[in-house]
Amino acid sequence: MHIDVYATYRQADEIKLREHSVVVIDILRATTTIVEALSNGARSVIPASEIDEAIELRRVRGGQTVLAGERNAEKIEGFDLGNSPLEFTPMAVQGKTIVLSTTNGSRAIEKVKNCDTVFIGAMRNRRAVVEQLMKEKKNIAIVCAGTEGGFSADDIYCAGAYVMLIEELKPDVTICDLGIVAKNFYMQGKLNPQLLQSTKHYSKLVQLGLDMDIAFCMEEDACAFVPQVNNLTIEI
Amino acid sequence: MHIDVYATYRQADEIKLREHSVVVIDILRATTTIVEALSNGARSVIPASEIDEAIELRRVRGGQTVLAGERNAEKIEGFDLGNSPLEFTPMAVQGKTIVLSTTNGSRAIEKVKNCDTVFIGAMRNRRAVVEQLMKEKKNIAIVCAGTEGGFSADDIYCAGAYVMLIEELKPDVTICDLGIVAKNFYMQGKLNPQLLQSTKHYSKLVQLGLDMDIAFCMEEDACAFVPQVNNLTIEI
Repeated sequence: MHIDVYATYRQADEIKLREHSVVVIDILRATTTIVEALSNGARSVIPASEIDEAIELRRVRGGQTVLAGERNAEKIEGFDLGNSPLEFTPMAVQGKTIVLSTTNGSRAIEKVKNCDTVFIGAMRNRRAVVEQLMKEKKNIAIVCAGTEGGFSADDIYCAGAYVMLIEELKPDVTICDLGIVAKNFYMQGKLNPQLLQSTKHYSKLVQLGLDMDIAFCMEEDACAFVPQVNNLTIEI
Repeated sequence: MHIDVYATYRQADEIKLREHSVVVIDILRATTTIVEALSNGARSVIPASEIDEAIELRRVRGGQTVLAGERNAEKIEGFDLGNSPLEFTPMAVQGKTIVLSTTNGSRAIEKVKNCDTVFIGAMRNRRAVVEQLMKEKKNIAIVCAGTEGGFSADDIYCAGAYVMLIEELKPDVTICDLGIVAKNFYMQGKLNPQLLQSTKHYSKLVQLGLDMDIAFCMEEDACAFVPQVNNLTIEI
């Protein structure tokens, strides 16, 4: 078993990943939001890269659809919800289909949508996803969404947490170079929580007053759900 | 002053970097070799991506040219030298022009050849390069060569060493996310030298018996020369 980590979805080659177990990570906040929405009873989540596409999907699907998403970390005007996982309460999402348009996460999921096995990974459902990966017994590709098409330390931190747990459960796993660096970054971040504070996307959310979102997203192994992507529809 | 770090030359946007101080790093071994060749009296180094191009350059330039390079970390057949810095002795290179064709480093240098200010960075000349960067007073772009077009932990380790020293000399510098992760990786690697041993390119060189090359490349601040690239010719 081998782990590859991709810093952004742009670097991931969909064809090469077809037969891998793929985990998409956008810890702040899209994949955390997806995990939380489905945990709280949403029927499914459909990612949409573009705002127009999201609006059209809601129009076609009708009343049981919630339109959610962000641009520049803020709620899209006219949408029902933003991209804070804390908004996706049972009251807001139970039985509903969520159409979610975010800057990076939705695009990362679209990029790998034709791979056989794609899971949605967050820190909150890390152990559950990793246990599923152990059952799949395939090579693993962790695809970070990144921020604005570039390397994002928060996603790498989360990817490192996955690498560490996978290696704990399967000590003979081989790990790509970025996976080794990510694991090390996660281990140091656990010892020194200040490490993430100067990173770009994390500090932007702090400036927007989203400390509670961050704390929620960073909580480890708090949720047992493993959302899976099939034909661009995410369900548990 | 801001530091950007690029994991591979493919991710570096030459246009965006025109007005930066650019440092190209391929610590194992191309940029270390270039630094060593020029330190030992070579007149200049000309990188050539392709083998044919290197042979043609030597044909045109004639007798005072040394043909050097590697494919798959081994010397190219018929070339005078490989890519081990230890081969580039004063006896071998003094007064000569070196045409150097390597898998990643030569390509990284070609990628940024039209930027105004491009330095060749290795661990051995780190302090000298960083002191030059302080004089330039521009934003800094550290472009790692990477391995086979992908992320390479050895280059990131060296980039982290640069970031750390720059920050030491200029504490108000801002650092991109990959720079923060790289700095952390370097600091941990200093404490635990085993960290690099399972990484891809490093372990490949160990398998080829090139431990002495690695030890030489990893030596910090041992050399005061700052090679600079002008019109694809590297001189000090």
